[in-house]
Amino acid sequence: MPPSVSVFGAAGFTGALTARLLHRHPSFELRALTARADQGRRLDDLYPHHRVPLELEELDVDRHAEVDAAVVAYPHGAAAPLVDELRARRVRVVDLSADFRLHDPDVYGRWYREHQAPDLLSDAVYGLPERYREQIRGADLVANPGCYPTATLLALAPLAQAGLIDDVVIDAKSGVSGAGRAPSEKTHFVSADENINAYGVPAHRHIPEIEQELAALGAELRITFVPHLVPLDQGELVSCYVTPPEALADRDDLDDLYAEAYADEPFVELADTPPGVRDVRETNICRISVHRDSRTGRVIVFGAIDNLWKGAASQAVQNLNLMFGLPEDEGIGPVKSRAREVVS
Amino acid sequence: MPPSVSVFGAAGFTGALTARLLHRHPSFELRALTARADQGRRLDDLYPHHRVPLELEELDVDRHAEVDAAVVAYPHGAAAPLVDELRARRVRVVDLSADFRLHDPDVYGRWYREHQAPDLLSDAVYGLPERYREQIRGADLVANPGCYPTATLLALAPLAQAGLIDDVVIDAKSGVSGAGRAPSEKTHFVSADENINAYGVPAHRHIPEIEQELAALGAELRITFVPHLVPLDQGELVSCYVTPPEALADRDDLDDLYAEAYADEPFVELADTPPGVRDVRETNICRISVHRDSRTGRVIVFGAIDNLWKGAASQAVQNLNLMFGLPEDEGIGPVKSRAREVVS
Amino acid sequence: MPPSVSVFGAAGFTGALTARLLHRHPSFELRALTARADQGRRLDDLYPHHRVPLELEELDVDRHAEVDAAVVAYPHGAAAPLVDELRARRVRVVDLSADFRLHDPDVYGRWYREHQAPDLLSDAVYGLPERYREQIRGADLVANPGCYPTATLLALAPLAQAGLIDDVVIDAKSGVSGAGRAPSEKTHFVSADENINAYGVPAHRHIPEIEQELAALGAELRITFVPHLVPLDQGELVSCYVTPPEALADRDDLDDLYAEAYADEPFVELADTPPGVRDVRETNICRISVHRDSRTGRVIVFGAIDNLWKGAASQAVQNLNLMFGLPEDEGIGPVKSRAREVVS
Amino acid sequence: MPPSVSVFGAAGFTGALTARLLHRHPSFELRALTARADQGRRLDDLYPHHRVPLELEELDVDRHAEVDAAVVAYPHGAAAPLVDELRARRVRVVDLSADFRLHDPDVYGRWYREHQAPDLLSDAVYGLPERYREQIRGADLVANPGCYPTATLLALAPLAQAGLIDDVVIDAKSGVSGAGRAPSEKTHFVSADENINAYGVPAHRHIPEIEQELAALGAELRITFVPHLVPLDQGELVSCYVTPPEALADRDDLDDLYAEAYADEPFVELADTPPGVRDVRETNICRISVHRDSRTGRVIVFGAIDNLWKGAASQAVQNLNLMFGLPEDEGIGPVKSRAREVVS
Repeated sequence: MPPSVSVFGAAGFTGALTARLLHRHPSFELRALTARADQGRRLDDLYPHHRVPLELEELDVDRHAEVDAAVVAYPHGAAAPLVDELRARRVRVVDLSADFRLHDPDVYGRWYREHQAPDLLSDAVYGLPERYREQIRGADLVANPGCYPTATLLALAPLAQAGLIDDVVIDAKSGVSGAGRAPSEKTHFVSADENINAYGVPAHRHIPEIEQELAALGAELRITFVPHLVPLDQGELVSCYVTPPEALADRDDLDDLYAEAYADEPFVELADTPPGVRDVRETNICRISVHRDSRTGRVIVFGAIDNLWKGAASQAVQNLNLMFGLPEDEGIGPVKSRAREVVS
Repeated sequence: MPPSVSVFGAAGFTGALTARLLHRHPSFELRALTARADQGRRLDDLYPHHRVPLELEELDVDRHAEVDAAVVAYPHGAAAPLVDELRARRVRVVDLSADFRLHDPDVYGRWYREHQAPDLLSDAVYGLPERYREQIRGADLVANPGCYPTATLLALAPLAQAGLIDDVVIDAKSGVSGAGRAPSEKTHFVSADENINAYGVPAHRHIPEIEQELAALGAELRITFVPHLVPLDQGELVSCYVTPPEALADRDDLDDLYAEAYADEPFVELADTPPGVRDVRETNICRISVHRDSRTGRVIVFGAIDNLWKGAASQAVQNLNLMFGLPEDEGIGPVKSRAREVVS
Repeated sequence: MPPSVSVFGAAGFTGALTARLLHRHPSFELRALTARADQGRRLDDLYPHHRVPLELEELDVDRHAEVDAAVVAYPHGAAAPLVDELRARRVRVVDLSADFRLHDPDVYGRWYREHQAPDLLSDAVYGLPERYREQIRGADLVANPGCYPTATLLALAPLAQAGLIDDVVIDAKSGVSGAGRAPSEKTHFVSADENINAYGVPAHRHIPEIEQELAALGAELRITFVPHLVPLDQGELVSCYVTPPEALADRDDLDDLYAEAYADEPFVELADTPPGVRDVRETNICRISVHRDSRTGRVIVFGAIDNLWKGAASQAVQNLNLMFGLPEDEGIGPVKSRAREVVS
Repeated sequence: MPPSVSVFGAAGFTGALTARLLHRHPSFELRALTARADQGRRLDDLYPHHRVPLELEELDVDRHAEVDAAVVAYPHGAAAPLVDELRARRVRVVDLSADFRLHDPDVYGRWYREHQAPDLLSDAVYGLPERYREQIRGADLVANPGCYPTATLLALAPLAQAGLIDDVVIDAKSGVSGAGRAPSEKTHFVSADENINAYGVPAHRHIPEIEQELAALGAELRITFVPHLVPLDQGELVSCYVTPPEALADRDDLDDLYAEAYADEPFVELADTPPGVRDVRETNICRISVHRDSRTGRVIVFGAIDNLWKGAASQAVQNLNLMFGLPEDEGIGPVKSRAREVVS
């Protein structure tokens, strides 16, 4: 019998997409969808293009927890208490919020609010498969990374591990779906269309998550990170400007470093030219290019993902695949095209 | 001393743009802005690109009515009572709502709600200058046309007056600003982007307004009118499919009919090829092309306007210019380029 | 051994997408790609998001014809001679051009140019599976329908078959991918963005194809058809304004008519409200809603498709599936969500 | 008699817009337009929204040089010889190309090609009015700055002059009009729409121009500069990440620095929050916000302009206004709204 999964908070963009991926997944049974609004509506009424013929139900933990796994797509802060209840019932959880990403409840408290389930923090595995694949396989609680951290960490990990990051500026650009489903002045078409501007300056909440994971990779530093809203629906690009400790020999070394790091990764794709977000739309792929600026000695790395897919929903399913011993790429679309050396 | 004008309801898209046009207008003094929300904020904070350094104030009719003229940009239904108060204080009014466009309060009641100021209806002049220029000059209450009726009536007037419309299908397309400033599922970037769909099917509220004015032009008929939302901010195109009473001789006659009708109109521009909404963005111009389908005998007319400009704010200022004896084009941007015969 | 297929003309939008669908298809072997430009480049270099690691080769008919089937994605006029050569070698062909859609070479000659392979016309089956499913199964040459005809015919077929179309105006809107890959003034971002305009007025080349097939359904008439370019990449909406021979009883009858016609069609989806093109993006689905305007007696039908998918590439694969006895929906994405009666 | 001006190269985006601004300008007479393509077409046929009823003529230097001033909108490299001819006939020139921006012909040669008119370089004044206003008044040859340098230099000048820039990363984003009018794979709607990617990595040609002018302001350094293409038509944002020589006291000092620097500048507008490119669309205004990241000590500055206006055409007219002793803001739209202290 296939493992059963429910999605909690399926009315939002990422929850709904997770529901779609699980509904079409060959090895999971999508059991139920809950929502805090729009209860009684069918998901294929709210999101016709997802074609999930299930109703959004009011949360009834006792009933809805009778599943093997749960994906929780609640807002930051609201997720922790629900995850606590689900874990108490031994449901394996992938949580899309920030609530279990930071190991230190004090850091969480500084950037968000007092943590509602600090005892669970030590159980949580950071759900970036390219980094914590083995731990995720055995985990009962996986904290799905934020979209910006996903792209940034994949773009920077080889440099961080090689001790090549002394300082970094990360200029990120995200489509409007990253701002969520709630209508607002910022997400109004007339505000976002033909526009681009920075937000969350100078201290966006994804900073501590990126710094924690860079440190775990060996790069202990304070980053500069500024996200921008761009007029497209889904897609995210991070442009990373790295100051290495000393000038690097040449670009070939960088190419080798990345080629080696990601040779066996099905969802990390290397390119010779800067990736566009169109290249990864509706995929679980992160497409990366790395460049060396010989004038300044800087290393410039670009990473492109679909913020709703690899930045949230398809990465959640990738984690579920690992947790349940399934092929890692099952039900989440194409893997990368053949490696760069063959391409060019 | 220049005539003073206040804008009531200046936080919305059309009210704010009217404020901008009046603020830069050489012959009006923009006195005050009121709003039902966002009070205390400056308009150049809400809409930096309009650059109007005035504060949005809470309505105080006694004080705000001490002006020569008012532009009312309230929602349908809410406008009538305010217009009533302003007229009682002898303020000359251009009203952007639908409240004074329909002559018959019963028709208004059927499509909207019970009319709140029916006694004023007989004073109101329909503010389409190309049609009612003389009446507008002397009017104290001008009902600014809806955006769809503006484009449609300008596109069809020559045919209607020539008795050439037996039946018509009007397929209209509007940018998202036409849906107003209130954030909603429909106006969310992620809903509107990469999308197009019809709404208000089969009976949009602009139908009685169009039918009333077509009848006044001599074409008494029931129209088919369907608007669509397209992924752009401002701009509106009406595609009109006219069945004439009998087959027309040839296209040249149509060209002459339109050339004659609009020869002296500064804001109606004729084109040989179908107009695009980019051609009229941020102008008071309606750009029209007329075509004859010899296979079916139909006449096809396209009319493009900027829904916020000619469809609302700049047409309101055009009306104010007429009411106060000013040059009709003052403060509302370029007039049409030279006539078609010279162009092509 | 799976049937082998080559794509001829794989550098264009529809050929490239066909290659992607076949590359991931569980039951076909994608053998080779040819192109008339960009030879030597890999398809995943031109179109990274398709992730097809094959090179575009110069045409060598002898070699490339050693396949079970071919998809030809050449421009109109250029396709016929190649199809002729492929058929001479007994390759089964799905042709994406207009060259084999019109039964009458004289009609073809009037709208395009002199036909280059008129002898093949009688072999060709019009590849609209919802209409000619059985003939397609046995066909050696399938003429894949145009994008506009696909959406229009699916939207109108039930009415046509019921004798309910006396006259029809079809106002169509297409994303810019419909204009093809060749860069031009029209497809330049700055021309298309924030714009919408009609083209091909008054006599677009898709008219004879639609009229031919409406006649085959029982509706012999001359249609009015006008396409518009809208600022989105893929997606197409047809808005059909039908004059029935006499007033229809009520909307329920229409609903029943459509529900019955499409009950068993996996790729035709009915909706209560006007479909948006987002609802069908990257699917083989046509989403339809039908409405009755009691004021005028008109029936209004909307049909939305993805012009590159159901309007071209995925429909080609749907046809290949039928031709090779495979499940009709294999490799072309989701089928429709549950029927409307359950949804609402 | 008003000074006469001709525009050379008026078929491109920036030349055409310059023609529009001069055509409506109260104090210049727009005499003639030349073009290297599209000769014989009228400009209001190519660009209806500019409404300039003049024909594009083939270049005839003798005839076309009979004017007081010329705006040259030729590509880099092609401009120098024409400017040479115009200057030989004593025509005062504003050149939109890069040909006269770099003082050192060797630097020009390294980034472009061998300079075609090196003798003129010493006469050329860099046309950034906020920096070289007095020199521009007396100049006969003004090198209009590039769009990226304009936004970057206005964003960084106060810091540079205060000796506060030790290092800087500039991440720039531009709308597609910045890529020019020539249709290409890159400017195709389907490539640019729903996309964002970097280009010109790691060494874009605007780098030497920015470095030259930063040095003139006192900041001698090598910059990191990477531009990105974003899916909008006009608008440009530079995000500047500045490492100061030592930690700055607090943000108030920065605010004062900028407030003082730009107090009297009609076209430099300060904002408390990051500017959006919508805020400056179709204006000559650069909108700037400055922020201090206390975690890292970095100073972050954003500058937004319209790349076709302040980044090219309206800045050219601003320069012409200065050269002919006219009010600096004549004919180029609104000046900034009241200063920030009043706004917030």
